[in-house]
Amino acid sequence: MINQKPLDLEFENRIRASFGKQGLIHTLNGKIAHIGPGELHIEAPFDDRFTQQDGFLHAGIVTTLMDSACGYAAYTLMPANSRVLSVEFKVNFLNPARGERFRAEGRVVKSGRTISVCEGKLFALQDGQETLAAMMQATMICIRKDS
Amino acid sequence: MINQKPLDLEFENRIRASFGKQGLIHTLNGKIAHIGPGELHIEAPFDDRFTQQDGFLHAGIVTTLMDSACGYAAYTLMPANSRVLSVEFKVNFLNPARGERFRAEGRVVKSGRTISVCEGKLFALQDGQETLAAMMQATMICIRKDS
Amino acid sequence: MINQKPLDLEFENRIRASFGKQGLIHTLNGKIAHIGPGELHIEAPFDDRFTQQDGFLHAGIVTTLMDSACGYAAYTLMPANSRVLSVEFKVNFLNPARGERFRAEGRVVKSGRTISVCEGKLFALQDGQETLAAMMQATMICIRKDS
Amino acid sequence: MINQKPLDLEFENRIRASFGKQGLIHTLNGKIAHIGPGELHIEAPFDDRFTQQDGFLHAGIVTTLMDSACGYAAYTLMPANSRVLSVEFKVNFLNPARGERFRAEGRVVKSGRTISVCEGKLFALQDGQETLAAMMQATMICIRKDS
Repeated sequence: MINQKPLDLEFENRIRASFGKQGLIHTLNGKIAHIGPGELHIEAPFDDRFTQQDGFLHAGIVTTLMDSACGYAAYTLMPANSRVLSVEFKVNFLNPARGERFRAEGRVVKSGRTISVCEGKLFALQDGQETLAAMMQATMICIRKDS
Repeated sequence: MINQKPLDLEFENRIRASFGKQGLIHTLNGKIAHIGPGELHIEAPFDDRFTQQDGFLHAGIVTTLMDSACGYAAYTLMPANSRVLSVEFKVNFLNPARGERFRAEGRVVKSGRTISVCEGKLFALQDGQETLAAMMQATMICIRKDS
Repeated sequence: MINQKPLDLEFENRIRASFGKQGLIHTLNGKIAHIGPGELHIEAPFDDRFTQQDGFLHAGIVTTLMDSACGYAAYTLMPANSRVLSVEFKVNFLNPARGERFRAEGRVVKSGRTISVCEGKLFALQDGQETLAAMMQATMICIRKDS
Repeated sequence: MINQKPLDLEFENRIRASFGKQGLIHTLNGKIAHIGPGELHIEAPFDDRFTQQDGFLHAGIVTTLMDSACGYAAYTLMPANSRVLSVEFKVNFLNPARGERFRAEGRVVKSGRTISVCEGKLFALQDGQETLAAMMQATMICIRKDS
């Protein structure tokens, strides 16, 4: 998607440290399944503590997983001394999030000095099949800690 | 915001029944704080199981509360024999979701036969002060069960 | 909506100068109908050069008017030596944009140092009646010219 | 992107007829550059009647081209006796829309009975180079004329 060199070659350590501080990701039992420059995937199991009224994964948790995947995908390309925040995102729900596991994929489309634009996808995994359940278009901002 | 008579005068029972089936809302300890034709508020306490990396409420949970408030606000104006689903939403994050409690407000702007458009707001409540932390613009769909 | 002092008391001159340079607004025969700190309205007449397939104002022109109203509303609160750009926006279409005239209203909800969040509304005016045809949630960025 | 058989094998005639009725597309001198099941491209030349304050193509026209490409892409998969309308869209602006020509690409990601979800891209073409200037995530609705 994007062919860009990371500014901080130690980005993986920086991201795993930040990821580990997210109470919600811990509660969801989410794990980083893939990390590379401009791309990050998170996997999490189904859990009926996180359902909507029909027993599928709640739209808010579908969103959580994509938001984290997109935010950390953007963060791979940001400088060492920075933080990442979600400015905004938009999500379309395509199919019920019904599965044993879920994989959120975040990819950077444009990484600017201040603003990064990402796209996210959420796949529901069941019986060896993958279904695209939702898609996100997100804007992330880089906050330099020294500014 | 909208001045529209509900099609189903028993909407409150219908909504409380659906609300009670959301595993996630139960996990978040969310309660309906206000319900009326075209409007619904949900309150939930802070809980460090649902935080992002800086210790504030995670954007995905901020979104969850607004999505549920908007979806059920739309559902107040739908017929008895129907279901409501989120087609899509867009959220802007304005201020950190830092507070003891949070209140999500959902309001219907247009209620059509199939599509309803809602706006949501998320307030963080701390020391008697309210801060607008996020806002949503959402599209909901009415699924008639007999169709 | 927002109660914020402008940083640049001469904002009206700055905005009218920028507005006058928009080829598209000139083509649409758009005029500033209201300007104040954090709020700006634009009016434009119906013109069948700008229609969609059913003869109503095209969604893209509905969007143009709201985008300009939101961008310039944000610009009222930005410093003198700055430019404003649209980062992104999201629009819901509520009713056909059928009218003799149209009024786009842009309002700032949050004006930050770099990012401003605005909401826009598009009203269709016909036979003395106003119909809300569309609504926007938009993110604008302030570019400082000296940076 | 999508591998779906059109319901109406005559979709191309239906789309060209509707396209020809859009006053705005005629004004913009837009042409269909590609049409296939679930995908449609529109090209249009630069014209300084449609610029923003820096002389680039206005965000509203960038949006117009993607909205039409997405709407007609969705329409390729809808039944003969139907209309297509934009429910909503969200656009991120990635690079200035600076070019001699522009190409909007619309693709269907999910085509449902009522709701279709599309993604759009806008490329600026200059000196043989293509730049991705904007991207859209859009929701379209199918209105059956006999209902």
